Amino acid sequence: MRIAVDAMGGDKAPREIVAGAILAAKAWPDYKIVLVGEQNLVRAELDKHPDVPKTVTVHHAGSFIRMDESASLAIRKKKDASVSICADLAREGMVDAFVTAGHTGAAVVASTLKLRLLDGIERPGIGILLPTLGTPTLLIDVGANIDPKPLHLYQYAMMGDVYFRYILRKNRPSVGILNIGEEETKGTEHIKEAHQLLNKSKLHFLGNVEGRDIFAGTVDIVVCDGFVGNVVLKVSESIAGVIGKLLKQQLRKNPMTMLGAILAKPAFDALKKEIDYSEYGGAPLLGVDGVCIISHGSSDARAIKNAIRVASEFVKYEINQHILEAVQSHQEEES
Amino acid sequence: MRIAVDAMGGDKAPREIVAGAILAAKAWPDYKIVLVGEQNLVRAELDKHPDVPKTVTVHHAGSFIRMDESASLAIRKKKDASVSICADLAREGMVDAFVTAGHTGAAVVASTLKLRLLDGIERPGIGILLPTLGTPTLLIDVGANIDPKPLHLYQYAMMGDVYFRYILRKNRPSVGILNIGEEETKGTEHIKEAHQLLNKSKLHFLGNVEGRDIFAGTVDIVVCDGFVGNVVLKVSESIAGVIGKLLKQQLRKNPMTMLGAILAKPAFDALKKEIDYSEYGGAPLLGVDGVCIISHGSSDARAIKNAIRVASEFVKYEINQHILEAVQSHQEEES
Repeated sequence: MRIAVDAMGGDKAPREIVAGAILAAKAWPDYKIVLVGEQNLVRAELDKHPDVPKTVTVHHAGSFIRMDESASLAIRKKKDASVSICADLAREGMVDAFVTAGHTGAAVVASTLKLRLLDGIERPGIGILLPTLGTPTLLIDVGANIDPKPLHLYQYAMMGDVYFRYILRKNRPSVGILNIGEEETKGTEHIKEAHQLLNKSKLHFLGNVEGRDIFAGTVDIVVCDGFVGNVVLKVSESIAGVIGKLLKQQLRKNPMTMLGAILAKPAFDALKKEIDYSEYGGAPLLGVDGVCIISHGSSDARAIKNAIRVASEFVKYEINQHILEAVQSHQEEES
Repeated sequence: MRIAVDAMGGDKAPREIVAGAILAAKAWPDYKIVLVGEQNLVRAELDKHPDVPKTVTVHHAGSFIRMDESASLAIRKKKDASVSICADLAREGMVDAFVTAGHTGAAVVASTLKLRLLDGIERPGIGILLPTLGTPTLLIDVGANIDPKPLHLYQYAMMGDVYFRYILRKNRPSVGILNIGEEETKGTEHIKEAHQLLNKSKLHFLGNVEGRDIFAGTVDIVVCDGFVGNVVLKVSESIAGVIGKLLKQQLRKNPMTMLGAILAKPAFDALKKEIDYSEYGGAPLLGVDGVCIISHGSSDARAIKNAIRVASEFVKYEINQHILEAVQSHQEEES
């Protein structure tokens, strides 16, 4: 298992990325981890750690893509950007997968251009696992494609189904399409058409779901366009933080509630861990002919380690092979 | 102040609606409240209360619209539906405003058909106040218009500005447009065009905001299409509940955290009240030539009372008059 890690991507790069790569190398001694980035910077970070496993190596990249750059322009201009080099290494078969916490759009463009799409897949989609009251829900797409056609939405469901079956080990996971009501007559024309495609398919399609169903865990896979998915992701990330802050204000108002908060702290900590996205690691870019795992911009070492685990599972369970089989089986049904 | 209340709309109708109308009548003895619904049912509910103020009256409606009906079909077919009768009373000047916790789409269609739109306004939008770390944020639209043109989005900002200035008493409230990144190059074509319209306008426009900004309170008014707004609303409503349930599970795991939870209970209760939508009352349907306040489907008596307060403020501060002035001033700038 050889995994490239974009050492320059993310708010806490390169420090936390390098630390995460080392954590992963220690946890899985048979993995080879390639840190891709400005070599002096990356080596300086590595030098801060007393016991770097030999399985961690450095691959130089002359530049990197800033968060405020246009993804497609930057990828075309900066041939030596760290995320581009990661994609190059994957295309050339030098690594099995790569992980980045940098510019999401740049990761999507670099992967699509260099790795290309899987045969029969029209658009890639980012699928992210979200914590719910029950088993996690896979939300796809959360930002790769803001104006998907009905077929794209259908293919997201198909790829989500494969991911859920092989990674989360659940047979016939249920699929819902995100809408503003449960009735078939609701929503945009694209959603109504996708609804019909899903209805005809062999997927375990349960129809429309609403915003409230995502975290209730009503279905295993929720399909949506990348604009809505991205907004849902960012809203939900922020709400937990806002609720935490508001609760703190209330708890501080008197000594008794303050004492209660101290006694209850282990429960708060456990909850925090339960709803912490970094526990779930990165989000796969489904549909490209290779393995690209996109990690949160604020990823710390633990999040990067978990993203490396997600990448290795993607490779190990041959998700792309199974997606190709699903595409083929769908095409045979159609013809 | 004369306000019609759709006694048949909402999950807890007519019981909680009738109870809410009575609460409001007691709080504001100079208001006249007209309960619109199946008269025997409504009178039976009223009879359960020992001291109904004389300012509460009943207006019969022969039918009502179920949640699973198509809004436009149902409004055309059921001339005597409670929400239609409410709109009729408002159009005929028998009441100054109406409140409904029933089918949102039906309220939008009935208002648009019967009250018509304000001169110069192209589409109505539902604006809802959301709690944040600071002052509340107005999110518009949350479901009236799922495919708005750039001009519609611009007009939502303009109407939100008026609402914020006169109801929340803040001069030059800030406006953001919901997008998936802060850069001007992000988002759909419609959003980019709306961005330009807003940039040219006299509104205090701060550019793109992201999902995380809504509850952080980064801007006072967040403009978005009704699909995204509806999903945001439902996701955020559900998350607080999910976090509460997960926290309860954790707190129950040992006696010490359980004790902590008991001591901290007043803080939890205060937080619950702080983030409870029913405290904010209903959401105005901005842009119609009349006053329609849409309340949450699960509204209890307190939520209905608050929605009646919101309706009365809308009338008292002459929001529609000020929207017409804003439209006119915009048209003069253009010409």
